[in-house]
Amino acid sequence: MKARVTIMPKTGVLDPQGEAIRHALTGLGFSGVAEVRQGKVIDLELEATDEEAARAEVGRMCEKLLANTVIESWRVELV
Amino acid sequence: MKARVTIMPKTGVLDPQGEAIRHALTGLGFSGVAEVRQGKVIDLELEATDEEAARAEVGRMCEKLLANTVIESWRVELV
Repeated sequence: MKARVTIMPKTGVLDPQGEAIRHALTGLGFSGVAEVRQGKVIDLELEATDEEAARAEVGRMCEKLLANTVIESWRVELV
Repeated sequence: MKARVTIMPKTGVLDPQGEAIRHALTGLGFSGVAEVRQGKVIDLELEATDEEAARAEVGRMCEKLLANTVIESWRVELV
Protein backbone atom coordinates (compact mmCIF):
# COMPACT_ATOMS: atom_id res chain seq x y z
CA MET A 1 0.00 0.00 0.00
CA LYS A 2 1.22 3.50 -0.83
CA ALA A 3 0.84 6.46 1.51
CA ARG A 4 1.55 10.08 0.72
CA VAL A 5 2.40 12.40 3.60
CA THR A 6 2.15 16.14 2.97
CA ILE A 7 3.91 18.36 5.50
CA MET A 8 3.36 22.13 5.45
CA PRO A 9 4.43 24.97 7.71
CA LYS A 10 1.51 25.84 9.99
CA THR A 11 -0.49 29.00 9.31
CA GLY A 12 1.27 31.95 10.93
CA VAL A 13 4.67 30.26 10.92
CA LEU A 14 7.21 32.19 8.85
CA ASP A 15 8.30 30.35 5.72
CA PRO A 16 11.56 31.91 4.49
CA GLN A 17 11.96 29.26 1.77
CA GLY A 18 8.54 30.08 0.36
CA GLU A 19 9.32 33.78 0.54
CA ALA A 20 12.61 33.21 -1.31
CA ILE A 21 10.73 31.36 -4.06
CA ARG A 22 8.20 34.20 -4.35
CA HIS A 23 11.03 36.69 -4.62
CA ALA A 24 12.81 34.64 -7.29
CA LEU A 25 9.57 34.22 -9.27
CA THR A 26 9.00 37.97 -9.21
CA GLY A 27 12.58 38.47 -10.42
CA LEU A 28 11.89 36.15 -13.34
CA GLY A 29 8.85 38.20 -14.36
CA PHE A 30 6.11 36.10 -12.74
CA SER A 31 4.39 39.02 -11.09
CA GLY A 32 0.99 37.60 -10.18
CA VAL A 33 2.13 35.52 -7.20
CA ALA A 34 0.78 36.80 -3.89
CA GLU A 35 2.12 34.15 -1.53
CA VAL A 36 4.23 31.00 -1.63
CA ARG A 37 4.48 28.30 1.04
CA GLN A 38 6.86 25.39 0.66
CA GLY A 39 6.41 22.03 2.28
CA LYS A 40 7.50 18.43 1.88
CA VAL A 41 5.87 15.41 0.41
CA ILE A 42 6.95 11.93 1.44
CA ASP A 43 5.76 8.86 -0.45
CA LEU A 44 5.90 5.64 1.53
CA GLU A 45 5.59 2.14 0.15
CA LEU A 46 4.13 0.14 3.03
CA GLU A 47 3.92 -3.57 3.56
CA ALA A 48 0.72 -3.17 5.61
CA THR A 49 -2.50 -4.19 3.90
CA ASP A 50 -5.05 -2.90 6.42
CA GLU A 51 -5.99 0.69 5.65
CA GLU A 52 -6.92 1.69 9.20
CA ALA A 53 -3.70 0.25 10.63
CA ALA A 54 -1.56 1.81 7.90
CA ARG A 55 -3.08 5.24 8.50
CA ALA A 56 -2.40 4.98 12.25
CA GLU A 57 1.17 3.77 11.66
CA VAL A 58 1.97 6.62 9.26
CA GLY A 59 0.47 9.06 11.80
CA ARG A 60 2.92 7.77 14.39
CA MET A 61 5.80 8.17 11.89
CA CYS A 62 4.77 11.80 11.35
CA GLU A 63 4.62 12.55 15.07
CA LYS A 64 7.91 10.82 15.80
CA LEU A 65 10.11 11.65 12.82
CA LEU A 66 8.66 13.08 9.64
CA ALA A 67 7.14 16.35 10.85
CA ASN A 68 8.19 18.94 13.38
CA THR A 69 4.74 19.24 14.93
CA VAL A 70 5.57 22.53 16.67
CA ILE A 71 5.73 24.38 13.36
CA GLU A 72 4.43 21.90 10.77
CA SER A 73 1.12 20.24 10.10
CA TRP A 74 0.88 16.91 8.33
CA ARG A 75 -1.72 15.02 6.36
CA VAL A 76 -1.81 11.39 5.23
CA GLU A 77 -3.47 10.08 2.08
CA LEU A 78 -3.52 6.41 1.20
CA VAL A 79 -3.27 5.76 -2.51
CA MET B 1 -6.63 31.18 -7.04
CA LYS B 2 -4.50 28.62 -5.26
CA ALA B 3 -2.19 26.20 -7.04
CA ARG B 4 -0.34 23.29 -5.52
CA VAL B 5 2.82 22.08 -7.26
CA THR B 6 4.12 18.64 -6.33
CA ILE B 7 7.71 17.91 -7.32
CA MET B 8 9.09 14.38 -7.03
CA PRO B 9 12.36 12.74 -8.06
CA LYS B 10 11.79 10.89 -11.34
CA THR B 11 11.51 7.12 -11.30
CA GLY B 12 14.99 5.63 -11.43
CA VAL B 13 16.66 8.70 -9.97
CA LEU B 14 18.38 7.95 -6.68
CA ASP B 15 16.75 9.65 -3.70
CA PRO B 16 19.25 9.69 -0.81
CA GLN B 17 16.93 11.81 1.36
CA GLY B 18 14.15 9.27 1.00
CA GLU B 19 16.59 6.46 1.72
CA ALA B 20 17.78 8.28 4.87
CA ILE B 21 14.17 8.61 6.03
CA ARG B 22 13.55 4.89 5.42
CA HIS B 23 16.66 4.05 7.40
CA ALA B 24 15.65 6.32 10.29
CA LEU B 25 12.12 4.85 10.33
CA THR B 26 13.54 1.33 10.51
CA GLY B 27 15.77 2.45 13.38
CA LEU B 28 12.70 3.74 15.23
CA GLY B 29 10.99 0.37 14.89
CA PHE B 30 8.80 1.08 11.85
CA SER B 31 9.77 -2.04 10.00
CA GLY B 32 7.07 -2.32 7.34
CA VAL B 33 8.38 0.44 5.06
CA ALA B 34 9.65 -0.87 1.73
CA GLU B 35 10.51 2.40 -0.01
CA VAL B 36 10.48 6.12 0.69
CA ARG B 37 10.69 8.95 -1.84
CA GLN B 38 10.83 12.56 -0.75
CA GLY B 39 9.69 15.49 -2.82
CA LYS B 40 8.57 19.06 -2.43
CA VAL B 41 5.19 20.70 -2.39
CA ILE B 42 4.83 24.38 -3.22
CA ASP B 43 1.55 26.21 -2.61
CA LEU B 44 1.09 29.34 -4.68
CA GLU B 45 -1.51 32.04 -4.12
CA LEU B 46 -2.09 33.46 -7.59
CA GLU B 47 -3.79 36.65 -8.65
CA ALA B 48 -4.89 35.04 -11.95
CA THR B 49 -8.56 34.14 -12.19
CA ASP B 50 -8.54 32.16 -15.45
CA GLU B 51 -7.88 28.47 -14.77
CA GLU B 52 -6.32 27.66 -18.13
CA ALA B 53 -3.97 30.65 -17.98
CA ALA B 54 -3.02 29.94 -14.34
CA ARG B 55 -2.16 26.34 -15.15
CA ALA B 56 0.04 27.41 -18.07
CA GLU B 57 1.76 30.09 -15.97
CA VAL B 58 2.53 27.68 -13.14
CA GLY B 59 3.85 25.19 -15.71
CA ARG B 60 6.31 27.85 -16.90
CA MET B 61 7.33 28.52 -13.28
CA CYS B 62 8.07 24.81 -12.83
CA GLU B 63 10.16 24.60 -15.99
CA LYS B 64 12.09 27.79 -15.23
CA LEU B 65 12.61 27.70 -11.47
CA LEU B 66 10.66 25.33 -9.25
CA ALA B 67 11.72 21.93 -10.58
CA ASN B 68 14.98 20.54 -11.89
CA THR B 69 13.39 18.84 -14.89
CA VAL B 70 16.41 16.63 -15.52
CA ILE B 71 15.80 14.67 -12.34
CA GLU B 72 12.39 15.82 -11.09
CA SER B 73 8.86 15.57 -12.39
CA TRP B 74 6.21 18.10 -11.45
CA ARG B 75 2.44 18.22 -11.31
CA VAL B 76 0.08 21.16 -10.87
CA GLU B 77 -3.30 21.06 -9.15
CA LEU B 78 -5.54 24.10 -8.94
CA VAL B 79 -7.50 24.30 -5.69
